[in-house]
Amino acid sequence: MLRTKTCGELRIDDCNSKVTLCGWVQKVRDLGSMTFIDLRDRYGITQLVCNVDTDKNLYEQSKTLSREYVLQVTGTVRERSNKNKNIPTGDIEIEVSQINVLNTAKLPPFTIEDNTDGGDELRMKYRYLDLRRPVIRKNLEQRHRLAQLIRNYLSDENFLEIETPFLIRSTPEGARDFVVPSRMNPNQFYALPQSPQQYKQLLMVSGFDRYFQIVKCFRDEDLRADRQPEFTQIDCEMSFVEQEDVLNMFEGLIKHLFEKEKGITFDKFPRMTWQDAMKYYGSDKPDLRFDMKFTELNDVAKGKGFSVFDDAELVVGICAKGCAGYTRKQLDALTEFVKRPQVGAKGLVYIKYNEDGTFKSSIDKFYSQEDLMKFADKFGADKGDLMLVMSGKTMQVRTQLCALRLEMGTQLNLRDPFNYAVTWVTDFPLLEWNEEDQRFYAMHHPFTAPNPEDYPEMLDKDPGKVRAWAYDLVINGTEVGGGSVRIHNRDMQMRMFEALGFTKEAALAQFGFLMGAFEYGAPPHAGLAFGFDRLCAIFAGADSIRDFIAFPKNNSGRDLMSDSPNYIDQKQLDELYLSLVPVEKQ
Amino acid sequence: MLRTKTCGELRIDDCNSKVTLCGWVQKVRDLGSMTFIDLRDRYGITQLVCNVDTDKNLYEQSKTLSREYVLQVTGTVRERSNKNKNIPTGDIEIEVSQINVLNTAKLPPFTIEDNTDGGDELRMKYRYLDLRRPVIRKNLEQRHRLAQLIRNYLSDENFLEIETPFLIRSTPEGARDFVVPSRMNPNQFYALPQSPQQYKQLLMVSGFDRYFQIVKCFRDEDLRADRQPEFTQIDCEMSFVEQEDVLNMFEGLIKHLFEKEKGITFDKFPRMTWQDAMKYYGSDKPDLRFDMKFTELNDVAKGKGFSVFDDAELVVGICAKGCAGYTRKQLDALTEFVKRPQVGAKGLVYIKYNEDGTFKSSIDKFYSQEDLMKFADKFGADKGDLMLVMSGKTMQVRTQLCALRLEMGTQLNLRDPFNYAVTWVTDFPLLEWNEEDQRFYAMHHPFTAPNPEDYPEMLDKDPGKVRAWAYDLVINGTEVGGGSVRIHNRDMQMRMFEALGFTKEAALAQFGFLMGAFEYGAPPHAGLAFGFDRLCAIFAGADSIRDFIAFPKNNSGRDLMSDSPNYIDQKQLDELYLSLVPVEKQ
Repeated sequence: MLRTKTCGELRIDDCNSKVTLCGWVQKVRDLGSMTFIDLRDRYGITQLVCNVDTDKNLYEQSKTLSREYVLQVTGTVRERSNKNKNIPTGDIEIEVSQINVLNTAKLPPFTIEDNTDGGDELRMKYRYLDLRRPVIRKNLEQRHRLAQLIRNYLSDENFLEIETPFLIRSTPEGARDFVVPSRMNPNQFYALPQSPQQYKQLLMVSGFDRYFQIVKCFRDEDLRADRQPEFTQIDCEMSFVEQEDVLNMFEGLIKHLFEKEKGITFDKFPRMTWQDAMKYYGSDKPDLRFDMKFTELNDVAKGKGFSVFDDAELVVGICAKGCAGYTRKQLDALTEFVKRPQVGAKGLVYIKYNEDGTFKSSIDKFYSQEDLMKFADKFGADKGDLMLVMSGKTMQVRTQLCALRLEMGTQLNLRDPFNYAVTWVTDFPLLEWNEEDQRFYAMHHPFTAPNPEDYPEMLDKDPGKVRAWAYDLVINGTEVGGGSVRIHNRDMQMRMFEALGFTKEAALAQFGFLMGAFEYGAPPHAGLAFGFDRLCAIFAGADSIRDFIAFPKNNSGRDLMSDSPNYIDQKQLDELYLSLVPVEKQ
Repeated sequence: MLRTKTCGELRIDDCNSKVTLCGWVQKVRDLGSMTFIDLRDRYGITQLVCNVDTDKNLYEQSKTLSREYVLQVTGTVRERSNKNKNIPTGDIEIEVSQINVLNTAKLPPFTIEDNTDGGDELRMKYRYLDLRRPVIRKNLEQRHRLAQLIRNYLSDENFLEIETPFLIRSTPEGARDFVVPSRMNPNQFYALPQSPQQYKQLLMVSGFDRYFQIVKCFRDEDLRADRQPEFTQIDCEMSFVEQEDVLNMFEGLIKHLFEKEKGITFDKFPRMTWQDAMKYYGSDKPDLRFDMKFTELNDVAKGKGFSVFDDAELVVGICAKGCAGYTRKQLDALTEFVKRPQVGAKGLVYIKYNEDGTFKSSIDKFYSQEDLMKFADKFGADKGDLMLVMSGKTMQVRTQLCALRLEMGTQLNLRDPFNYAVTWVTDFPLLEWNEEDQRFYAMHHPFTAPNPEDYPEMLDKDPGKVRAWAYDLVINGTEVGGGSVRIHNRDMQMRMFEALGFTKEAALAQFGFLMGAFEYGAPPHAGLAFGFDRLCAIFAGADSIRDFIAFPKNNSGRDLMSDSPNYIDQKQLDELYLSLVPVEKQ
């Protein structure tokens, strides 16, 4: 080893011991007769001192050092006169006797500090320097610890981690695949897995009983902010279980992670049906860090001559506690907020329940004080509250009001990232109508089992109404995982493909091997997958997943550091029996 | 849960308890008035009994069951009259009160037993049934345990598991890349990693200090037997270390695995230089389960008029203890063995040291008994031994004699797969001359550091002689891992690329980001990688890695189960700006 100690471990008890440290120069301060150097490694920072009186040559050498030089330093630990209580090594410093410059460094293009002066592009291009910043290092350290906790917990529960293949068969159903041309099978392609879904189901057919994998998955989608073409999933499956068993098992896992990593304990996670989540929060991933539930108002809102409400399918609102004092300007800003194209509402009605018991609203023309009192009763509003009401088509207005609710939560500081509100959302619809393609798509995926109360009758009568045995885990308004009970019966699976508009031939061509497996004794099974990048971000109270991935790509799917993707040799193309189509030609 | 117990856990103490089991029908035996059913799950096999006298309907139902049906069975545990000492549940059976058929099964195309009647192709096509065989299940269970042991060991040693990207930049150096066309960056391609080499080095530049990852890697090579296009590596890197530190750290890991998984302890692993490995075993991965070291014989073999030896660069042989009794037929077979094209020798000389002290050899015409005694002295041969001698160009004859040595080891039963002989091989040459391309290639990879005793002088004078700080771990004649100290100095790295025939521009174009990183303070670092599939096979005493991978591909890189790779839609090709070149056109 080139060192005897790390830069994070020396304490007052180590005084007078001789040590060798290795690390990077964080800072050099020359005080004229002595130099202070902060030496940094993964484990911490230790202060080095070179004194002109003790060793003139060493002092002169120390002045030539610069930020991010790599040093091997030998010296004696001594007590600091001026202690730094902010760092664990702040009681000591090293009186240096020898400095060995292991490598020099150009001046980095941005500062290596938690609050760096580097912009996004620059940080991505020099990601290896960005990763030196303690804040990012801590993210990846936490990611490692979480992965370890997950693996050990699931292993203790008899789950086996089994690696499934990365070069698999492309299936047009679902999101777009990344494909990989095969040289040995010319003109044919592999696909990279969007998830190991079919393989984990096959493992259940094989009798593996409990499977998990922390595994990379791939989706070639147009990248919205904070999506990555490759992402990591905690993928799990169990046999001989029902929905309840899966929820309990993975609730146990998530609680374990919170307890071990953050010291937070939870009661039983609440559960909410998809129908209630939509009705009360306008979202299948409700943010339950604050209440502000939706109140439906059709009975008090309609019939008073206000055509906007009268013509609406649904009038629905939220009550912001203690916000009756909102100014005109604040209310206008809220109206502007819901009218933004991202939300798309036509307008917003407010009703202030003033401290003096009177109401002031934007619909005073149509509604008397008594009428507005009925609104307040519906909301359970108190004096001083602000009621915000929207109207329109049911699903649309719910989504719009959801955006407003979240905005109010933010404005009222009700969305502390470290206040964790966890819930299961259950009873998702099995199918989702797609207007554009004029067909149903599987809401979760085509292997999800229908709720037997709705099958087969409802699937024939009103497919959109069939509930699935599908569930999501939601933390602070973010879906961190989801899964379902799977179909394990070949006939039911065929019936599902039919409902999704597949011909029998198409279904067999694409999913034949899974369908085949179902004929040889498939057990009842169910599972779920968590988004690991997202889970890591939530544990650190962060919004973006990018700084929880060592080498992420930008929104065009590019790695700015290695300038990838890039062009390949004609020889490589020839070997793959491929030619490029010029972009302008298409 | 659909069960209260598994099929592997009931014991005599559980008698009289009521249980529900789930599993697959392994076997049904109808004895006329009662049926015995073996029910199998991942955890074991439990015997079920249905008695016509107890429940006639149930008995009738039990006769309709067939192999691989999936059952949920309720009944009472009772002591067996006819105990089966071969299985842990052999003391008990279940007196069945209810059978619920969870799924039926077609008759499998081969038997679900360790010694199956299924051929390779059939087993691959129905891999989900093949995986039901206990022998394969145990392989994957062991793989899971090994991965857990590795992760926990390395975590305890402060290593962080950090995920590196799968969609990276293609580099023509090294083996052939699998490439992935980018839709968002038309005509450009990602590559799948052959190893995370550059990324783990960047992590060291980032200060992560100790990194590991159990990770899939990809190589588009013509598949020799027992190679897979995707394989799993235990990838590791450390900063501020020298070769000795890496060897000690990972020797500790391997010892830990042997102790925990197999109860085998080792002394310090022996070390052998590459030069000695070649000289004494003719291979850089010597099988040390048996001795039979090479003996070089030039001084006793030459100058006696036998031109084959006189003209050879090297005369070298092995001594097979106690084999002087080999018959003419056996010796002819050995000669045939070395003459096979895979070995490629011209012939084989034998010298029997008979029990009566005389010698009998195939070169009696040229060598007197006294001459042959000199051979025997060289070999340290005893009466009753057989000396086998070959000659030719040094490297060639060593390789040929290595094949013969392994063959003799096999014939003499000296290669027990559960007798583990481990060794480090060190001091590999830095460069390897390629006749075809008339250039040097990096023997390990272009980032390997030269031994400072040989650098820079020897690199100029005789590049092929430069020793690298590179090392392999060899178990039972198989390379299970290897690594090197890396170059961390930009100038030395440029000098290496130069020696490999890169222009400065080409080196920068391909490895610019790593070269760039070296300018910002790269620490001294070193690492290694183990082949995880191979390691798993060795732990199970197996030759082939295929049954240690859940869903392997065949020798054409095909997955026979999903029939992959396969053709993709024209729409997918269009989106990727690609067109296919018909195979006959090229």
